[in-house]
Amino acid sequence: MARRAGVDLGGTKIQAVVMDDGGQVLGSSRQPTPTTGGPRDVVAAVAAAVREGVADAGVALESLAGVGVGSPGDVDDRAGTVTSARNLPGWDGSFPVAGVLGEELEVPVSLANDVDVATVAEYELGSGRPYASLLGVFWGTGVGGGIVLDGKLWHGRASAGEIGHMVVKLGGARCPCGRKGCMEAYAGRGAMEARARREVEDGTRTELFKIMHKRGRTRLTSGVFARALEQGDELAVSLIDRAVEALGAAIASAVNLLDVEAVIIGGGLGVRLGTPYAERIERAMLPHLFSDYRPPAVGTAALGDLGGAIGAALLIPAGRPAQAPT
Amino acid sequence: MARRAGVDLGGTKIQAVVMDDGGQVLGSSRQPTPTTGGPRDVVAAVAAAVREGVADAGVALESLAGVGVGSPGDVDDRAGTVTSARNLPGWDGSFPVAGVLGEELEVPVSLANDVDVATVAEYELGSGRPYASLLGVFWGTGVGGGIVLDGKLWHGRASAGEIGHMVVKLGGARCPCGRKGCMEAYAGRGAMEARARREVEDGTRTELFKIMHKRGRTRLTSGVFARALEQGDELAVSLIDRAVEALGAAIASAVNLLDVEAVIIGGGLGVRLGTPYAERIERAMLPHLFSDYRPPAVGTAALGDLGGAIGAALLIPAGRPAQAPT
Repeated sequence: MARRAGVDLGGTKIQAVVMDDGGQVLGSSRQPTPTTGGPRDVVAAVAAAVREGVADAGVALESLAGVGVGSPGDVDDRAGTVTSARNLPGWDGSFPVAGVLGEELEVPVSLANDVDVATVAEYELGSGRPYASLLGVFWGTGVGGGIVLDGKLWHGRASAGEIGHMVVKLGGARCPCGRKGCMEAYAGRGAMEARARREVEDGTRTELFKIMHKRGRTRLTSGVFARALEQGDELAVSLIDRAVEALGAAIASAVNLLDVEAVIIGGGLGVRLGTPYAERIERAMLPHLFSDYRPPAVGTAALGDLGGAIGAALLIPAGRPAQAPT
Repeated sequence: MARRAGVDLGGTKIQAVVMDDGGQVLGSSRQPTPTTGGPRDVVAAVAAAVREGVADAGVALESLAGVGVGSPGDVDDRAGTVTSARNLPGWDGSFPVAGVLGEELEVPVSLANDVDVATVAEYELGSGRPYASLLGVFWGTGVGGGIVLDGKLWHGRASAGEIGHMVVKLGGARCPCGRKGCMEAYAGRGAMEARARREVEDGTRTELFKIMHKRGRTRLTSGVFARALEQGDELAVSLIDRAVEALGAAIASAVNLLDVEAVIIGGGLGVRLGTPYAERIERAMLPHLFSDYRPPAVGTAALGDLGGAIGAALLIPAGRPAQAPT
């Protein structure tokens, strides 16, 4: 059997998996994304994650048919470059990820957009398997979207799927992207944290930052939000309520436009908050759905946190069994 | 040469064209849609429009390879039926349009959704010819959308393209569909007329209804709006401003999701108000566009009022030249 590795290169963590031809995960590894330095440091950390994943799987690095990387920023697989990955340190320009990583590991490297590979993973191996068309919604620091139509990922001119920047409220809240009324302005973890900080400055009481400090975090992570919700923290509840309403409206808009069979909710917050919140998003979607007699199926990402890395591994074609004639 | 006829079955008018294999319009005919009776009366009017179009083209009915009909409601081409065409009189149930019309005219009949055929017409023969992916926006009584991706119409599970019911304002205005905050609640001619009537009841002064009466209309048609805008009527200007803003936001949302190459604006209001208003919609779209360094092309429907009928004719495959060997 040939093996393939996949890496989900995120703003906070680098997740690697090693997978066999059948899509079985043999080993994995996770490490924090460097917060200083530049692309070369990040790629070195990616290489280290792959080596650890390979060790965890108990296989040899040489047995890999290739490494797939799902990356933020503008990804050009043909050129092997990632450009303007603004969540990663010092990555304003273009960097030859495939060349540098391939040389370091001595295996072929393929690149693709992080949200796209996570969507394909759910389509091929996760909650999307029963469907030919689906919308993946990755609810995290931002809100990304991936679209599968008739069994094929739809890229548009390269940047389709920006569901987080669909307008849900004309003249509404300022989004981290600088525009107004985007869904992400209400639902993105980043926007929610910024709002929480403003509210606290204005005197609102909340457990959110206490939980954050207790956990040794500097950000309101998905885990921090989840804990605050469990405690019934009013600010956390109201921020998440707004997020759910905005997600429901944008997803309904996308379904009204595309009429896909299924909506799969993943991402840091989506995975952490799980089915009860996917159900709340579904209920928030229904009142805006035009063909409400035939709503799409709504579910959570079955591959959870590993979806991005698994999807990245799928960039490497499944090899022939070693015993096959050549 | 084989000829084909196409009919755009609208709520106010029935437009027929007769077209040759090359897409050239040989003749046309227009008549008002019956406002009383039921599906049988409407189909009789469609048959009359086809006969008139054939006469206008100076060809024989027998020379037609077929008749395509673009219809509102739920269209099932395989079954030959149109169901729940609520803009047409007495059409709550299902009616065998293809069978009844085909028997009356003794030619094969094909059916499709009215917005879909208008979109395909622009893609094949109109403003969409340079592009492989586009969004058609038909701004009329309601606002319909058609999507071409990679050269193929995207239907979803049958009802894709409902751009008029994308949410542009959470908690916003009531839409004729009953939901809140839909783009059509601001931009649809029907919603604008309802709002104008309420404003007049509340004492707002406007020329809109005077122009309507002078023209012998009972509705604020596209022509009535166009005339009121020329006169600088304040209510007309403010209604159209709101419509342009809502259209810009919903189109930006759709482009953020799909990243199509082009947006083509047609429909009664789109065609009547033309390029200056398409340019205003484009300017309203830009501030909400995520990939604003690479906006889609925005233009008006080149086939104008005839697009729906031409697209319906395209449902009939181009025949072989008569002199071709069989």
